[in-house]
Amino acid sequence: MTVTYSSKVANATFFGFHRLLLKWKGSIYKLLYREFIVFATLYTAISVLYRFFLTGSQKRFFEKLSIYCDKYAEQIPVTFVLGFYVTLVVNRWWNQFVNLPWPDRLMFLISSCVQGRDEYGRLIRRTLMRYVNLTSLLIFRSVSTAVYKRFPTMDHVVGAGFMTRHERKIFDDLKSPHLKYWVPFVWFGNLASKARNEGRIRDSVDLQTLMNEMNKFRSWCSLLFGYDWVGIPLVYTQVVTLAVYTFFFACLIGRQFLDTDQGYQGHDLDLYVPIFTLLQFFFYAGWLKVAEQLINPFGEDDDDFETNWCIDRNLQVSLLAVDEMHMNLPRMERDIYWN
Amino acid sequence: MTVTYSSKVANATFFGFHRLLLKWKGSIYKLLYREFIVFATLYTAISVLYRFFLTGSQKRFFEKLSIYCDKYAEQIPVTFVLGFYVTLVVNRWWNQFVNLPWPDRLMFLISSCVQGRDEYGRLIRRTLMRYVNLTSLLIFRSVSTAVYKRFPTMDHVVGAGFMTRHERKIFDDLKSPHLKYWVPFVWFGNLASKARNEGRIRDSVDLQTLMNEMNKFRSWCSLLFGYDWVGIPLVYTQVVTLAVYTFFFACLIGRQFLDTDQGYQGHDLDLYVPIFTLLQFFFYAGWLKVAEQLINPFGEDDDDFETNWCIDRNLQVSLLAVDEMHMNLPRMERDIYWN
Amino acid sequence: MTVTYSSKVANATFFGFHRLLLKWKGSIYKLLYREFIVFATLYTAISVLYRFFLTGSQKRFFEKLSIYCDKYAEQIPVTFVLGFYVTLVVNRWWNQFVNLPWPDRLMFLISSCVQGRDEYGRLIRRTLMRYVNLTSLLIFRSVSTAVYKRFPTMDHVVGAGFMTRHERKIFDDLKSPHLKYWVPFVWFGNLASKARNEGRIRDSVDLQTLMNEMNKFRSWCSLLFGYDWVGIPLVYTQVVTLAVYTFFFACLIGRQFLDTDQGYQGHDLDLYVPIFTLLQFFFYAGWLKVAEQLINPFGEDDDDFETNWCIDRNLQVSLLAVDEMHMNLPRMERDIYWN
Amino acid sequence: MTVTYSSKVANATFFGFHRLLLKWKGSIYKLLYREFIVFATLYTAISVLYRFFLTGSQKRFFEKLSIYCDKYAEQIPVTFVLGFYVTLVVNRWWNQFVNLPWPDRLMFLISSCVQGRDEYGRLIRRTLMRYVNLTSLLIFRSVSTAVYKRFPTMDHVVGAGFMTRHERKIFDDLKSPHLKYWVPFVWFGNLASKARNEGRIRDSVDLQTLMNEMNKFRSWCSLLFGYDWVGIPLVYTQVVTLAVYTFFFACLIGRQFLDTDQGYQGHDLDLYVPIFTLLQFFFYAGWLKVAEQLINPFGEDDDDFETNWCIDRNLQVSLLAVDEMHMNLPRMERDIYWN
Amino acid sequence: MTVTYSSKVANATFFGFHRLLLKWKGSIYKLLYREFIVFATLYTAISVLYRFFLTGSQKRFFEKLSIYCDKYAEQIPVTFVLGFYVTLVVNRWWNQFVNLPWPDRLMFLISSCVQGRDEYGRLIRRTLMRYVNLTSLLIFRSVSTAVYKRFPTMDHVVGAGFMTRHERKIFDDLKSPHLKYWVPFVWFGNLASKARNEGRIRDSVDLQTLMNEMNKFRSWCSLLFGYDWVGIPLVYTQVVTLAVYTFFFACLIGRQFLDTDQGYQGHDLDLYVPIFTLLQFFFYAGWLKVAEQLINPFGEDDDDFETNWCIDRNLQVSLLAVDEMHMNLPRMERDIYWN
Repeated sequence: MTVTYSSKVANATFFGFHRLLLKWKGSIYKLLYREFIVFATLYTAISVLYRFFLTGSQKRFFEKLSIYCDKYAEQIPVTFVLGFYVTLVVNRWWNQFVNLPWPDRLMFLISSCVQGRDEYGRLIRRTLMRYVNLTSLLIFRSVSTAVYKRFPTMDHVVGAGFMTRHERKIFDDLKSPHLKYWVPFVWFGNLASKARNEGRIRDSVDLQTLMNEMNKFRSWCSLLFGYDWVGIPLVYTQVVTLAVYTFFFACLIGRQFLDTDQGYQGHDLDLYVPIFTLLQFFFYAGWLKVAEQLINPFGEDDDDFETNWCIDRNLQVSLLAVDEMHMNLPRMERDIYWN
Repeated sequence: MTVTYSSKVANATFFGFHRLLLKWKGSIYKLLYREFIVFATLYTAISVLYRFFLTGSQKRFFEKLSIYCDKYAEQIPVTFVLGFYVTLVVNRWWNQFVNLPWPDRLMFLISSCVQGRDEYGRLIRRTLMRYVNLTSLLIFRSVSTAVYKRFPTMDHVVGAGFMTRHERKIFDDLKSPHLKYWVPFVWFGNLASKARNEGRIRDSVDLQTLMNEMNKFRSWCSLLFGYDWVGIPLVYTQVVTLAVYTFFFACLIGRQFLDTDQGYQGHDLDLYVPIFTLLQFFFYAGWLKVAEQLINPFGEDDDDFETNWCIDRNLQVSLLAVDEMHMNLPRMERDIYWN
Repeated sequence: MTVTYSSKVANATFFGFHRLLLKWKGSIYKLLYREFIVFATLYTAISVLYRFFLTGSQKRFFEKLSIYCDKYAEQIPVTFVLGFYVTLVVNRWWNQFVNLPWPDRLMFLISSCVQGRDEYGRLIRRTLMRYVNLTSLLIFRSVSTAVYKRFPTMDHVVGAGFMTRHERKIFDDLKSPHLKYWVPFVWFGNLASKARNEGRIRDSVDLQTLMNEMNKFRSWCSLLFGYDWVGIPLVYTQVVTLAVYTFFFACLIGRQFLDTDQGYQGHDLDLYVPIFTLLQFFFYAGWLKVAEQLINPFGEDDDDFETNWCIDRNLQVSLLAVDEMHMNLPRMERDIYWN
Repeated sequence: MTVTYSSKVANATFFGFHRLLLKWKGSIYKLLYREFIVFATLYTAISVLYRFFLTGSQKRFFEKLSIYCDKYAEQIPVTFVLGFYVTLVVNRWWNQFVNLPWPDRLMFLISSCVQGRDEYGRLIRRTLMRYVNLTSLLIFRSVSTAVYKRFPTMDHVVGAGFMTRHERKIFDDLKSPHLKYWVPFVWFGNLASKARNEGRIRDSVDLQTLMNEMNKFRSWCSLLFGYDWVGIPLVYTQVVTLAVYTFFFACLIGRQFLDTDQGYQGHDLDLYVPIFTLLQFFFYAGWLKVAEQLINPFGEDDDDFETNWCIDRNLQVSLLAVDEMHMNLPRMERDIYWN
Repeated sequence: MTVTYSSKVANATFFGFHRLLLKWKGSIYKLLYREFIVFATLYTAISVLYRFFLTGSQKRFFEKLSIYCDKYAEQIPVTFVLGFYVTLVVNRWWNQFVNLPWPDRLMFLISSCVQGRDEYGRLIRRTLMRYVNLTSLLIFRSVSTAVYKRFPTMDHVVGAGFMTRHERKIFDDLKSPHLKYWVPFVWFGNLASKARNEGRIRDSVDLQTLMNEMNKFRSWCSLLFGYDWVGIPLVYTQVVTLAVYTFFFACLIGRQFLDTDQGYQGHDLDLYVPIFTLLQFFFYAGWLKVAEQLINPFGEDDDDFETNWCIDRNLQVSLLAVDEMHMNLPRMERDIYWN
């Protein structure tokens, strides 16, 4: 479920964001505590090894190694690489959100343009709306693991009422080696055209507005599919991951507190707990986690889109709008500002 | 209320921006003075502790700690993280502004396309316009704390004349577990379709232009809702806040003036007041405040959007345009450049 | 007046941009010479003070202070802050330019869709066009200081022929506490609708194309208004200004040439004129000036948009196109490539 | 074939991205192992030369050279240059993906707007659809090496059924020194207009919707062509390549382990294997490879778009939709939520 | 002519980009060799002066000056400034490319919507098309030096067949102090309206589709004009140029090899040829050249748009499409996948 905190930050107040630091759900702590434990354990192990088990000359070698690692850790440009990469990921994530297919625009049009309160009229409107919902379901099954779990086979799709048995038969009979999520749209177009011939849709202007809207819906669907199909190139993700992991690997050795008696520059204090390195861990690893969470927003993370909820809401609302509410207008009366 | 200063910077003049530094309302000083006092107090407390209460060896330890902190404070890439983050926040904020739903486009169309100066015509136009305003009000109630305070219940919405009692009843009777802000749009579509059947709207071209415009309005509404619902991932905000807070925590200790007699490099001057660190505080904390102010522009900050004003303006103006001004044209006469 | 130099850089040539360095109008020198004089004078004053008036121990203190300032000057991330901020300002500025309302699209449509070469037809076309120009004038009066100076009252608007006396009376009679720049558009819509009823506009397709185009024009107008109303948050501008001013303040002291005999690191040369600091001044202050110039492009800077010229051009050209040129076609003849 | 890994990163898990580090196909290792071997070999060769073959004074000279190279290697801003450049390349790559011409929108319209289940109707629909596919094929032949290999001559295009012999003759007879990929669109427009005259397309609204959609398709095609024709300026690519190569050239000498007995600063450890330099190689060269892979996404890289697959899919699916499926609707029946 | 190299980088191969380093046309070498010679000559002159002509104390002074210059050269943030600036220039350049006015969309519509294969019908279609080409020519004359050279006067425009003598007379008779490139569009609109009245264009739907497309074409034209008229503010370009030139000026002195006997830090090696400084020159100056080449893409650089070629192509192709090809359809026959 998406973690919404905007009401908490409506006003800029005294240390306004500090309250956000104390949340658990969807927080950096929840996402990172396991990695943090691993990192801290490794750091401690190396520290113990250095302090208690190494001989004098081994210590001297380790100290040189530590300084060498620290020097290179500073040269790794983790900030920029993460900055550019996370910007890319966040943009893709938001574009996926604004391209989620909502049937609302279509349902307004179908409700107002497809005439007839008799059963046949209702049937046309409900069927058109069902085709729209069916397509988005087929797309969501491809891109979202949560939806796929809920509808593992076409039987489940039929069972949930998105498709009739007869439609499924025709769907299966279509011979094509390619994905068939576009099929309900062809039905939609043909059914709308038929309704136009039968006078249920008044004229071509109404029909083409519907078709146009349907094509917009299709574009959202195929864009979602595209985002899933063609991700950020693997190499880019690997480069960023490699940079961050290398940095932390270098930190494990390079940020050890060395024997203050040896007089190495910048090593005249032994705090035992490398507080700033641990904060840096939260900081950089947290930034990478942002990318990890958003790179596929159709999983089951705390911050992922609730696709199953969308599917239910869309079917329920759209059938309500085109059937029960069709031409079911409140009585018009003068508003309180009349004259 | 939005703080407008563009007229003050119309021309680039001698030290043009310096005048902006002296404003109070919506300024960095007003936003930050409390945090600044806290920071300065803590800094002073530590300074006093170091100078007067620590023993000699404690002082030596503190000095090492201070140098250690200073070294890491410089390594924290606050600038970049804030740069990338604030850019993201500012873009979202501006997109929310340009997607504020204004009914002007719809009111021009309704005024010119829905015929009839008789009461029934007036009723249709006013009712259509009211549905539009009602939807934007329902959305604003969800996203804006200021609007929610003004209209805490649907009774207030009815009381303010956005909805009639009868409409409210139908609205409440609709059984749906989901938000119902789309309901007035279904009414709008059906009422427009009815007006078309009754000849109040001439033909499908006029009708579809209206429907199209209404769908644009709906998209603005749902985009606003989306920005509120799916914010910047919490982890990202936490990462940035953590980086800035860590930096200032490190500065509190690391930027103390140390005993000049100890001969630490870069510590041969004691100014008592760490002027540049305080400026850096204004600078970085101010940048974070930019994000804090803009991350939810529907609160009650000095710089937030005046949604309550919008709601009043839209209702007043749109009813005026579709009713009193309908077909109320000035006499046409030759302009002064005629021939 | 906009400074156009694109023809000077049409080809990439030997040291191609150096010619631009020698321009005066709209140049960095013209914008900055006053600030530069102030900066140079202060620098010189401090330098003279240090060299001739301070006692030995005061000199030693000043030298420490200078080194301290220099150290912090280097830590202020002026480049990034300016980079992110100027990018934001430049984007806003360009968006304002591409959203300047030009009536050309409307005038083509009115000229070809509103029929009749008789006086009544001319009157309709000219009046429609005048309403369009009137709206953009009302908007420009709000956002541009130059236009406001030229049209300080509505009398000037009437006097310049954008409005008739009768229209002004109706305009003033509308009771609304809000801005009324949308009023001419309601007239436009109603007049177009009337022309449609009278057969001057053939059918709803022509009418709606006009209305659609008019709504586009309105969107440009309201976007311009929005850019003026909701500027870059004051805090952001203050943060950037503060960073740049702090930097130069630190430079004034930190970049002094210190006594070479004292052997401070990096201070073994006394050039008297801090050539690179002065260049840095041009460089950073110039970058800030870019922002200052563009943050409100409707002032009277060398590089601001020539709104008064736009208003004249638009009225003159659009009346010409819808009146004198209406159906005034050149004789069609075979072109030279015929067969 | 595009490398899809989004399902692997659906959820943010414990060290979520580490699994991606172990993939081979489309990975950084597969792309870089040859360059890595060259780099490592050169490094080793220089190392061996320095350790075993140089005389004492030659060693001293080499050591100075190494320190000199190392100093400048750090000054080369590879990170930023790559950051800005890769951002540009990735944006172009994604824009090319979203502008791939898919005929789906057109096939829905043709299927629902072009009437007649008789042979003549089928012929019109199939021919229209074929023209659309033909154009995208002509464009893909220009931009994609893979498609060009498959269709080296127009004979192959005719052979694959995208064009009839007669069409090819007319196509070849058109005298024009310019590319002729627009020709099928003129046929499309004229054929649609003919169908309108013969009543196969009901009215101008249907016709213009088709034409409009066809023009969208054309825009995608010409945009793809534009991306191929006008690439990122060669100079930019050369600048970036030069920066990266210079950096690695400097590293070859500057990152050698020098004789620890000479006491050079930062050279008191000899690890033989320059682990961080090798990681940096993967890191920077990998980032450049991202650009190399994406700069022309129509090649035969692991991550390139599968244009040949697209061509087959589009022809097969679109003919199916406009012919077999035309007005072939499933029986309408009540859905399970009826009442 | 645009330098196309995309086919050379279709696949990511072993050291894929190195081949690009060896191109001459449009390359960094061709653009920079003159500046490089100047820079190298100056460097050598200073080096010779220092080594052979200065006295001992002058040498000492020069050495201090060199170290001073080197220190400040490192502080100049050339990379970032260039990064932000070049990003801006590249975006503008690409937007200009995608907004080049192509008449293809209009020619499809005119060919299919303007009826009649008789001479009058041909005349209308050719004249409409000619007006479109005429407008783009008038715009190109304003923005492109290459086109202006080819058509220095309106006589050349008439001579090349874009305008008839009679049209020119009417064009010249229009009294307006402003640019008149919009005139042919008024003619276009009026001629289309006339054709509609005479039944050559079937109905308002066809007419308005044409008008709409024509307005899109006009927007491209005026956007091109806008890019030429309102360039990147001069100050910004000056700031960037100043930064780069200052950097190289500082390098000329600061990167000299100093007497190794003096024991200055980092100056214990004399290579005579400052290989990395020269590479940096190519690198930074090349990046600036990218901007210089792209800031006005309508010149005669290797990488500029071939506007003259566009003008010829557009006229030739568009007349072909609306005249010879009008309703000249290939015989329809069954394709090879029929059943």
